[in-house]
Amino acid sequence: IQSKLPEVGTTIFTVMSQLAAASGAVNLGQGFPDFSMSGELTDLVAKAMNDGFNQYTHMNGYPLLRQRLTEKAQRLYKTAIDPESDITITPGGTYAIYTALTAVLQPGDEVIIFEPAYDSYIPNIEVNGAIPVRIPLQFPDYAIPWQEVRARITAKTRVIMINTPHNPTGSVLNKEDMLQLQAITTGTNIIVLSDEVYEHLIFDGIEHQSVLRYPELLKRSFVCFSFGKTYHCTGWKLGYCIAPEPLMREFRKVHQFNCFSCDTPKQVALAAYLLNEEAYLSLGTQIQQKRDFFRTLMQDTPFRCIPSHGSYFECYSYGHFSQEADKEIAIRLTKEYGIATIPVSAFYKDNTDHKVLRFCFAKKEETLAKAVAQLKHL
Amino acid sequence: IQSKLPEVGTTIFTVMSQLAAASGAVNLGQGFPDFSMSGELTDLVAKAMNDGFNQYTHMNGYPLLRQRLTEKAQRLYKTAIDPESDITITPGGTYAIYTALTAVLQPGDEVIIFEPAYDSYIPNIEVNGAIPVRIPLQFPDYAIPWQEVRARITAKTRVIMINTPHNPTGSVLNKEDMLQLQAITTGTNIIVLSDEVYEHLIFDGIEHQSVLRYPELLKRSFVCFSFGKTYHCTGWKLGYCIAPEPLMREFRKVHQFNCFSCDTPKQVALAAYLLNEEAYLSLGTQIQQKRDFFRTLMQDTPFRCIPSHGSYFECYSYGHFSQEADKEIAIRLTKEYGIATIPVSAFYKDNTDHKVLRFCFAKKEETLAKAVAQLKHL
Ligand SMILES: CSCCC(=O)C(=O)O
Ligand SMILES: CSCCC(=O)C(=O)O
Repeated sequence: IQSKLPEVGTTIFTVMSQLAAASGAVNLGQGFPDFSMSGELTDLVAKAMNDGFNQYTHMNGYPLLRQRLTEKAQRLYKTAIDPESDITITPGGTYAIYTALTAVLQPGDEVIIFEPAYDSYIPNIEVNGAIPVRIPLQFPDYAIPWQEVRARITAKTRVIMINTPHNPTGSVLNKEDMLQLQAITTGTNIIVLSDEVYEHLIFDGIEHQSVLRYPELLKRSFVCFSFGKTYHCTGWKLGYCIAPEPLMREFRKVHQFNCFSCDTPKQVALAAYLLNEEAYLSLGTQIQQKRDFFRTLMQDTPFRCIPSHGSYFECYSYGHFSQEADKEIAIRLTKEYGIATIPVSAFYKDNTDHKVLRFCFAKKEETLAKAVAQLKHL
Repeated sequence: IQSKLPEVGTTIFTVMSQLAAASGAVNLGQGFPDFSMSGELTDLVAKAMNDGFNQYTHMNGYPLLRQRLTEKAQRLYKTAIDPESDITITPGGTYAIYTALTAVLQPGDEVIIFEPAYDSYIPNIEVNGAIPVRIPLQFPDYAIPWQEVRARITAKTRVIMINTPHNPTGSVLNKEDMLQLQAITTGTNIIVLSDEVYEHLIFDGIEHQSVLRYPELLKRSFVCFSFGKTYHCTGWKLGYCIAPEPLMREFRKVHQFNCFSCDTPKQVALAAYLLNEEAYLSLGTQIQQKRDFFRTLMQDTPFRCIPSHGSYFECYSYGHFSQEADKEIAIRLTKEYGIATIPVSAFYKDNTDHKVLRFCFAKKEETLAKAVAQLKHL
């Protein structure tokens, strides 16, 4: 068999989670919480199953859930989304990104991405015969170099992908970034794909700059969200995509023959649970406490913090005390110090190594304390 | 926006379900049961959520579930499947088919399909730039014309797709069919994709001819299954794919960046529930009773039965009493007689119309009785 995707290996998240399990290490690698999700929400799922919501719901998503999500978008971002035509529920944010790219990319199209980039972006582009155009974020603040973006746009540029709050670095885009993006793309055929799965995981009083706040930009955008990240249930694999009708129509042509529709009882439960605004509005504060707790612990280690302003993650550099490659130190820390992380070079196609590791701090305090305690011996 | 999939409209299942809802008609169109699923299984899901199984499980599927499925394959089909390398859990059978095709199809490849065909097959082929080669099943028994298959194979034939029990007709492949397929493909590069989502919905004492029974054939095959069809929970959107390691490796390259992993609590629950062999072994008898009940009712209408031997479906012809196009009569029956069905021409790319409607009989007896009562006035 001749491989269609010869360069794809196993995702770094799986590699590190497996190594963590095999080594009995604390897993601060793959991004998922180790504390409990809401019992109210799991009860609502149990109720939906008992009430008989176990057959196909609408292929675009349970209608009441779509309705609630558009009400939420109106409240938070002052934007009018049509629940009929502009939103589709998906089995996770990764799937939403895959489906959006597959809906619009033709062979030879170019897609601008910023590195470090979530590791599904490049294979998603390449499986469609399109070409990733990789622009490095500025190190160490991971800001977008807009000058370079302008310079790299060609007649073949079909999509620009952004991600805020950013995985793996926790950087966030500001208003100026969004206006730059809007200015660059207005009047062109370029589509924006905005990965906003960490929408509510944002700290320090910063307002999330969703594309949904920018009506001109939204006209050309797919915006991808995640229930798993918002409700501490990454294993539920549910998310959604918002886009204007002409784009969403194309998205649904792929979706209807990819997974067709999503889990019914969970959608019924989420529709009810979305009325609880506090659950998502309090999330930033709740997780910021964890970041701060973790950051304080890390001050007793030789690592240097690259401050995170959002997401589940904070990056730390170690180049001042070790010249080991980040993949090597990540493996060594897992095996010898009992703490698994993610080497940030895995988010660069050419494995650019700034000697930075990503830590997931969405963990119980005792988990974080246990993990960091080991690092003091470094 | 220039559409990448200009020919894709809304799937007939959604069209007819929406028309049924709008007309207050009994829905014998889209394939899903209207009776309850197992309360034991929903309780197991609730338990898994309460036990904290709400984060990502392994991207290839919850290990114990894969283990149980290989034990089941061993018992039923006497085949040795490696749970590590040969099986992946998916968000539904449709997704498994999509992902398998995307993993192996290059632009210009040819895929042999048999019509009537489940309506995702052709868009799945075309989104990958490949070419569907459509062979009509013989009317009215819907058998595969193997002579013609041999004649239509070219150097570009990459995949042959089969589906048994067959949607929409309920026909089943026999041992002779499988040996033909094996003889045709042995020594070639052709891959077989076998859609077996109705594996347990098989009647009249017939043994399901899974590709898993044919080791030589399995070496070149993807075999797709569905939990939703087996456990009366189509809305859970869970299934799986079995393939030998070299094929599964390619499948996983797409899967890991499509939806990455599937719902954790349901997989934990299914792993436990799979120990209940009776639940799937009794299914054929249970649903056959519904087919028989429905068939008897239909004898009081002018429709002529095209006997189903498996699946949720039975087809009926009406050409002897009406020359209406099947799409028109389906709409008229929904609006005027309160019963929604699926016009079988929707399963042919050129809309071949043998004047046949597909009825889903996986319904409560009262539902079936109510639906058919209307047809006596035809
Ligand atoms: C889909 S597995 C990876 C989870 C995640 O988002 C991350 O760890 O970056
Ligand atoms: C995925 S919706 C269609 C359900 C089904 O398999 C059918 O009705 O044929």
